[in-house]
Amino acid sequence: MPERIKVANFGVGVIGSAVVRTIIEKKSDWIEIVAAIDSDPNKNGKDLGDVAGLGRSYGVKVSDQVESTLSSTNPDIVIHTTSSYLAHVYSQLKAIAEQGVDVISSCEELSYPQIVDQNIAKDLDNIARQNDVTILGTGINPGFVMDVLPIVLTSPCVEVEHIRVSRQMNAANRRIPFQKKIGSGMKVEEFKQAIKNGQISGHVGLSQSMSMLADAIGWKLDRIEILSPEPVTLDHAVTGWMEIKPGIVAGTEQKAVGMIGQTRAIEYEFRAYIGAKEEYDAVEIDGTPVVSFRSSPCINGDSGTIAMLINMIPQVLKSKAGLITMSDLPLPSASNMPSPI
Amino acid sequence: MPERIKVANFGVGVIGSAVVRTIIEKKSDWIEIVAAIDSDPNKNGKDLGDVAGLGRSYGVKVSDQVESTLSSTNPDIVIHTTSSYLAHVYSQLKAIAEQGVDVISSCEELSYPQIVDQNIAKDLDNIARQNDVTILGTGINPGFVMDVLPIVLTSPCVEVEHIRVSRQMNAANRRIPFQKKIGSGMKVEEFKQAIKNGQISGHVGLSQSMSMLADAIGWKLDRIEILSPEPVTLDHAVTGWMEIKPGIVAGTEQKAVGMIGQTRAIEYEFRAYIGAKEEYDAVEIDGTPVVSFRSSPCINGDSGTIAMLINMIPQVLKSKAGLITMSDLPLPSASNMPSPI
Repeated sequence: MPERIKVANFGVGVIGSAVVRTIIEKKSDWIEIVAAIDSDPNKNGKDLGDVAGLGRSYGVKVSDQVESTLSSTNPDIVIHTTSSYLAHVYSQLKAIAEQGVDVISSCEELSYPQIVDQNIAKDLDNIARQNDVTILGTGINPGFVMDVLPIVLTSPCVEVEHIRVSRQMNAANRRIPFQKKIGSGMKVEEFKQAIKNGQISGHVGLSQSMSMLADAIGWKLDRIEILSPEPVTLDHAVTGWMEIKPGIVAGTEQKAVGMIGQTRAIEYEFRAYIGAKEEYDAVEIDGTPVVSFRSSPCINGDSGTIAMLINMIPQVLKSKAGLITMSDLPLPSASNMPSPI
Repeated sequence: MPERIKVANFGVGVIGSAVVRTIIEKKSDWIEIVAAIDSDPNKNGKDLGDVAGLGRSYGVKVSDQVESTLSSTNPDIVIHTTSSYLAHVYSQLKAIAEQGVDVISSCEELSYPQIVDQNIAKDLDNIARQNDVTILGTGINPGFVMDVLPIVLTSPCVEVEHIRVSRQMNAANRRIPFQKKIGSGMKVEEFKQAIKNGQISGHVGLSQSMSMLADAIGWKLDRIEILSPEPVTLDHAVTGWMEIKPGIVAGTEQKAVGMIGQTRAIEYEFRAYIGAKEEYDAVEIDGTPVVSFRSSPCINGDSGTIAMLINMIPQVLKSKAGLITMSDLPLPSASNMPSPI
């Protein structure tokens, strides 16, 4: 058996813990967790197995020290899951890169960072090149359903006139923190207030995904309009993290539009609410030929993100140095799947 | 405007002619046709515009001379559409590569040539490297619907247990030569005889697509069973290139199975018959999470193939030298699409 790829886990939150459990329980034939980093003092010094909910101790202690942890454990790659925002992860990614370690991050803004902050993006790219490491941001969305998938689906098109991407999920199937994040259980006025004060921020990544898609096919968008998240209410009671009565917010709907002149060239719709009867991802390309795909159900967000973070490891290890995006890597796929028997 | 990419067209048949018309009529902002090659004596010396059905003369003569045509016109890339079989295209691809020109071919067996003939594949790879050129086989199928698409759709999977890919098309919407190729209008006995004597060969590319998919996700298939094409008959009359009466062959159905031990790990179904009520491409991945996408209609085969051949040009020009597959290139997409307004 070839030597296993050594992974350091940075951020032992909900997604990071699930990555840890998945690697230890299902991926032990080709990768192993050798280190864990988290800034939370309540996790520091504890066994990773306990913090990540493995149900047993694992023999790796969670540390809040980036440099010394990486230099002493010498991982091949870091899986990083701490924040959605580029400014928050910048110093963490810099520290990882300066230790000479590749990194795959779930940071939504990192999926297409040049549109968030050109200076940070250039700086990270330089640091990555100087240290001969690769930095990639990915996940299910951004990272797959609203960028990689529609990009690939334009391949068989001679002409493209309009692209619509939509994702609808029944939030009752998701974690309670996710349900709370989308406002479920709030009164409509509370929801609107929560939007105003930033307590509800909407889905992070719509403009990243749309920019990646437009750039891939050569469209120059004049602007991307990210509409404010709207509350979704229903006329009947549904059950989520609490009972959602009629008129109470079940979740949210958000739209984004990519404009070329006065033309709505790309349209995104994202709906997540408790009680959604249909769950789907859909990509509709008006063009020659028409390409219109729809999934049932929608791709599960948590599993999908965990899979993207792990499946990209072999490709990122082989990639050129620098701050890259999913558009730079060869065809993504599940990696090293064990035989189904 | 940057200089346009110079394309030589090799094979001025149905698909080659459509590539020529598409480039001249719709892609003139970034590519141009500078040469045309075809071995048919009836085309040799004629104007490409007339041969390709452009409706006007174009000023490029079709030639049957590969070396002199390429050396005198100095194209950046050849679009090659002459045959489905590796053995038939070998000497043509060798001649192109030895002129130092990249090539994208619709040859079905070239999409994953190492499983067809390792010696030819190695030889072409060596010739390509020695001449610093890239050789790619692509198209809609193989090239997209049964390989690239299911490969990409495994990306968000932590686990993959079974993959089913199916494509169904109403052959009434396709060219008459295609309708004849799938046996439409034959009696069932004639169809069976045509299978026996090789007049109907079934869809070329199923084993290429399935091998590419299995290799991408790390499955070792013990064998691929390509079942013989079966005739499809209907209980009512339908209209195609001729009236298809009940009991007469409307088209064909073909299955392929990728076996691991006694387990049917990957299953392909391909149906093309006149009168098919639904047209779709479907990829169903049993795994964690479930990923199940279906299109309506199926992606048009002719437009799709033409698009794949043209859209891959920028990526192939930038690619490393050698005989490559779609799995080696970065994320495929439509290329250089003009603004939709």
